[in-house]
Amino acid sequence: MAQQIRDVVLRYVELVGSGSTADIVALYADDAVIEDPVGTEPKKGHAEIAAFYDVITGLERSTELTEGTVRAVEGHAAFQFTLTTKFGDQSFVVSPIDVMEFDADGRITHMRAYWGQDDMKVEG
Amino acid sequence: MAQQIRDVVLRYVELVGSGSTADIVALYADDAVIEDPVGTEPKKGHAEIAAFYDVITGLERSTELTEGTVRAVEGHAAFQFTLTTKFGDQSFVVSPIDVMEFDADGRITHMRAYWGQDDMKVEG
Repeated sequence: MAQQIRDVVLRYVELVGSGSTADIVALYADDAVIEDPVGTEPKKGHAEIAAFYDVITGLERSTELTEGTVRAVEGHAAFQFTLTTKFGDQSFVVSPIDVMEFDADGRITHMRAYWGQDDMKVEG
Repeated sequence: MAQQIRDVVLRYVELVGSGSTADIVALYADDAVIEDPVGTEPKKGHAEIAAFYDVITGLERSTELTEGTVRAVEGHAAFQFTLTTKFGDQSFVVSPIDVMEFDADGRITHMRAYWGQDDMKVEG
């Protein structure tokens, strides 16, 4: 089970970096809830979650999992990754810690991303 | 607020490495809940939390915050650190991701630690 969850985490980070909104949303359970960043209004269900990722998937971007951070146990995972998005000559870099819960099928039921404006770096 | 929370995180990691149980427990709100590791039975209130940390503070140990992992926003934090405990010639090393919630006074109200047996390394 921990291995299945670890695989979903790797796939999630890969897709946030280069996948379609539909591919990302397919990792979520139908009634999943996301809160990104933590403290903001949660989004619930595939439609709201898709609208959230549409903002990212419309941008030039890449992701990288932070080595040695994936912690996966039955039903739960936490990890850090870096998301770089490009707007013209500038790159915005943020490295959230994401915390996830999973159902028995390995679909994400809850995701919370820990990062603040102070954690964002602008390069270029 | 985020700075206050960041300071509590640094202090927490320091005390888990070299402080007394009482010092650690003082960082927690009276009715705080901890779940360490995630998926185990939560412990609630200072007495139960003290009993949990007594196991650690009775050991030869050290901690180190993982650079670049502290994510602190109002009321919430996530970070990774390494705890090394020594039993005779052997060292047990684990690097959990901890997720915390805080009250308005900066006291920890909820802590969840993400790590599994698979993440523990034995050295020596």
